[in-house]
Amino acid sequence: MLSQTVINRLKEILGEKNVVTDQVGLFAYGYDATLLAGQALGIVFPQTTEQVVEVVKYMNEQNIKLIPRGAGTNLSGGTIPTENSVIVGFGRMTKIHEIDTENFVAVVEPGTVNFDLQLELGKKGFYYPPDPASYKASTMGGNLGECSGGPRCFKYGVTRDYILGLEVVLPNGQVIETGGRDFLSESGYDLTRLIVGSEGTLGFITKIMVRVLPKPVTTRTMLAIYNTIEEASLTVAAIVSAGIVPTTLELMDNLLINTSEDACHAGLPRDAGALLIIEIDGEPEDMDQQVQVIDEITKKAGARDFKVATTAAEVDQLWLARRVAIGSVARVKPSYSLQDITVPRSTFPAAVTEVLKIAKDFNLLIGILAHAGDGNFHPLVIFDQRDEDEVKRVHAAELEICKMALGLGGTITGEHGIGLLKKKYLDLQFKPVEVDAFKKIKDTFDPKNLFNPGKILNI
Amino acid sequence: MLSQTVINRLKEILGEKNVVTDQVGLFAYGYDATLLAGQALGIVFPQTTEQVVEVVKYMNEQNIKLIPRGAGTNLSGGTIPTENSVIVGFGRMTKIHEIDTENFVAVVEPGTVNFDLQLELGKKGFYYPPDPASYKASTMGGNLGECSGGPRCFKYGVTRDYILGLEVVLPNGQVIETGGRDFLSESGYDLTRLIVGSEGTLGFITKIMVRVLPKPVTTRTMLAIYNTIEEASLTVAAIVSAGIVPTTLELMDNLLINTSEDACHAGLPRDAGALLIIEIDGEPEDMDQQVQVIDEITKKAGARDFKVATTAAEVDQLWLARRVAIGSVARVKPSYSLQDITVPRSTFPAAVTEVLKIAKDFNLLIGILAHAGDGNFHPLVIFDQRDEDEVKRVHAAELEICKMALGLGGTITGEHGIGLLKKKYLDLQFKPVEVDAFKKIKDTFDPKNLFNPGKILNI
Repeated sequence: MLSQTVINRLKEILGEKNVVTDQVGLFAYGYDATLLAGQALGIVFPQTTEQVVEVVKYMNEQNIKLIPRGAGTNLSGGTIPTENSVIVGFGRMTKIHEIDTENFVAVVEPGTVNFDLQLELGKKGFYYPPDPASYKASTMGGNLGECSGGPRCFKYGVTRDYILGLEVVLPNGQVIETGGRDFLSESGYDLTRLIVGSEGTLGFITKIMVRVLPKPVTTRTMLAIYNTIEEASLTVAAIVSAGIVPTTLELMDNLLINTSEDACHAGLPRDAGALLIIEIDGEPEDMDQQVQVIDEITKKAGARDFKVATTAAEVDQLWLARRVAIGSVARVKPSYSLQDITVPRSTFPAAVTEVLKIAKDFNLLIGILAHAGDGNFHPLVIFDQRDEDEVKRVHAAELEICKMALGLGGTITGEHGIGLLKKKYLDLQFKPVEVDAFKKIKDTFDPKNLFNPGKILNI
Repeated sequence: MLSQTVINRLKEILGEKNVVTDQVGLFAYGYDATLLAGQALGIVFPQTTEQVVEVVKYMNEQNIKLIPRGAGTNLSGGTIPTENSVIVGFGRMTKIHEIDTENFVAVVEPGTVNFDLQLELGKKGFYYPPDPASYKASTMGGNLGECSGGPRCFKYGVTRDYILGLEVVLPNGQVIETGGRDFLSESGYDLTRLIVGSEGTLGFITKIMVRVLPKPVTTRTMLAIYNTIEEASLTVAAIVSAGIVPTTLELMDNLLINTSEDACHAGLPRDAGALLIIEIDGEPEDMDQQVQVIDEITKKAGARDFKVATTAAEVDQLWLARRVAIGSVARVKPSYSLQDITVPRSTFPAAVTEVLKIAKDFNLLIGILAHAGDGNFHPLVIFDQRDEDEVKRVHAAELEICKMALGLGGTITGEHGIGLLKKKYLDLQFKPVEVDAFKKIKDTFDPKNLFNPGKILNI
């Protein structure tokens, strides 16, 4: 529990309504989008960089740990409070400082919701490419912390590719600025990308300069429907080999098609083995030809049906079905464990086969959802956490899935970070000397281990 | 001088012919593409990672500093030997281990010349986007060390955006692997991008996995000719505002047009105030329309002529003229100092005006060469280093140019690194707390300051 002295000081810095210490608040902020939970001593909501600095300095004196949090949509436990910690909620730092269409730059506060930025940019004919499935809720600060990907990342790259510069409050309360207004601006060591993806363990981001792009002139959204997931998985490499780089190649299996249908009635074919949502963008003149090539490729791979969305409403329906997929499995069993492996694209069909085998071997229900173009996929293990035996099998299956990904030359986490959830698998991917390099960097920035302790690394 | 014991041990590790200690060798390897010079105690040429490790461990014991070097085309003194140092020349590690067109990956050794990789990729219909002007000579290791840009970077991004994974020998001789085969593969802290651009001060790169792309279906190369450089500079933002992102927007002023013409007789108009080389790529159907839009924009900005290259030979001629520009000024005066500032694109015309003013104020000859799309430009101060007064004015002008770039929200170095040359301006761009963060990172990786000491930072 925080002492009254500490609470008073925090209220002095932040104002009465920006300090929460009641049980309901502490309970609510104890969760993120994983099954993990913790309890903080309090939650504070700074609204300026100066307030963040004051809180950091004061908490440093008090040896109280700080957990950064945006919207809490985190999928690896990166925002779960750990012992003796206070949550720094950035949800009230939501200003969009600037949208500079001449230089393709937007400057935002970390609490800005990704989608809110997209809306403002859209008014000026621009957009910010990284679009995690959670983008209607998740914040830019959270996206940066985890170096989020998203459906569009196959063509456009991930969060780190769009961050131009940052303002960061270090664990000692000092403020650094990194990068600059253009994408060459990284003199000296690349502190920008060291902070991006570091899950708040090295510093708290208080201002973000991102690269934005003019909206593509045209996009086309297609749906290919398959009797089997193997056929769908074979389509992916075939499209890329044909010289087409779609913005999006999303795969959903039969299980997730059905749970999504239950949730949002988008009209997906419930009897399909799998489907691919394929989106391309570019000049209008090129679209028809590319659609035709993709149609032929999907048919050749065994698709039983191929449709092109003809209205904006149809496109929205398809994306709604995809974006609710993860949450929708709650209708089947109360708990899920979302994997986030990535494998080289050419091994994607083999990885799908392996996951099906692991589901069978461990007698588990595993849904498959994938950003298939970049080989990033999310086996979704659905279970009941009250069933001890099932929980054991879930953990064993997770380990097998991670090993399989590494065996294929992939990674244990593509876009959800390490957090608390994946750190037990870190030693599978990294040699001790690499983990040691991580630890040294952490120690350099945060010698007292006060910023999001225990995330990524066991220290 | 290296003791005979050290020389013998190095020859034991590397073989007789891979250790150079004669005066001619030491003299030749004392230079890079700047005016700086130094002298190493010896030059060694490892051919395997294991040899690099053995050399690093042995030199660590001997407290001898190590300077990494590729082709020595460095423009900031990053490869100049400093006191008590041995050069590690990577020019004999030139293997292209693998080109994997299915996953868009190439794996190369650091001594691979950028252009050699392009040739091999070209055979399979692929290319590696970053293309520094020196790419026919410069090595991939050097490109990574400096995080090189190049003409194509406006559309495609810089070196860091294409590096998937690395094998790195640390100053203590340990070998780490970073990243992976796909562009999501960066779990934990982003060591890949921390090493890229660190100029060999944190580790020596021994293997590089890069992202490669299918070659664009079509490219078009255009030449716009202006009476004044101001008109040319105004074209840049106008093209981008029209929704066109060219791969390339290269600007050359009258001075460089003439020195390039002297050097390679490409047929450039010697009386032009400036020219823009504009290149676009994409689907064939889109090209004609974009060329027409660009034609109109250049004319509106005041271009007196606009040409589209119609043959491959014409395209090659134009690029030859651009690529020889820097070296060609030796015909005017014996020395040059190449600046590498970057400013936000919208301020590019203002920056051009400022450079013209600085040239006048300091009574100096300054040629202007720019990757204008990304606001990265290279004022080329041409002088005679035997003229003490002129040298003083050169340094004063350099300082003004850097201050001007920072004043416009830009950076003192866009793509050539800090090395020895720019480090005196580091404090203009960074606050002490930021330089301190750099120093802490350096100290974490290289506590004995043995790897490329004195580059980037004054330590």
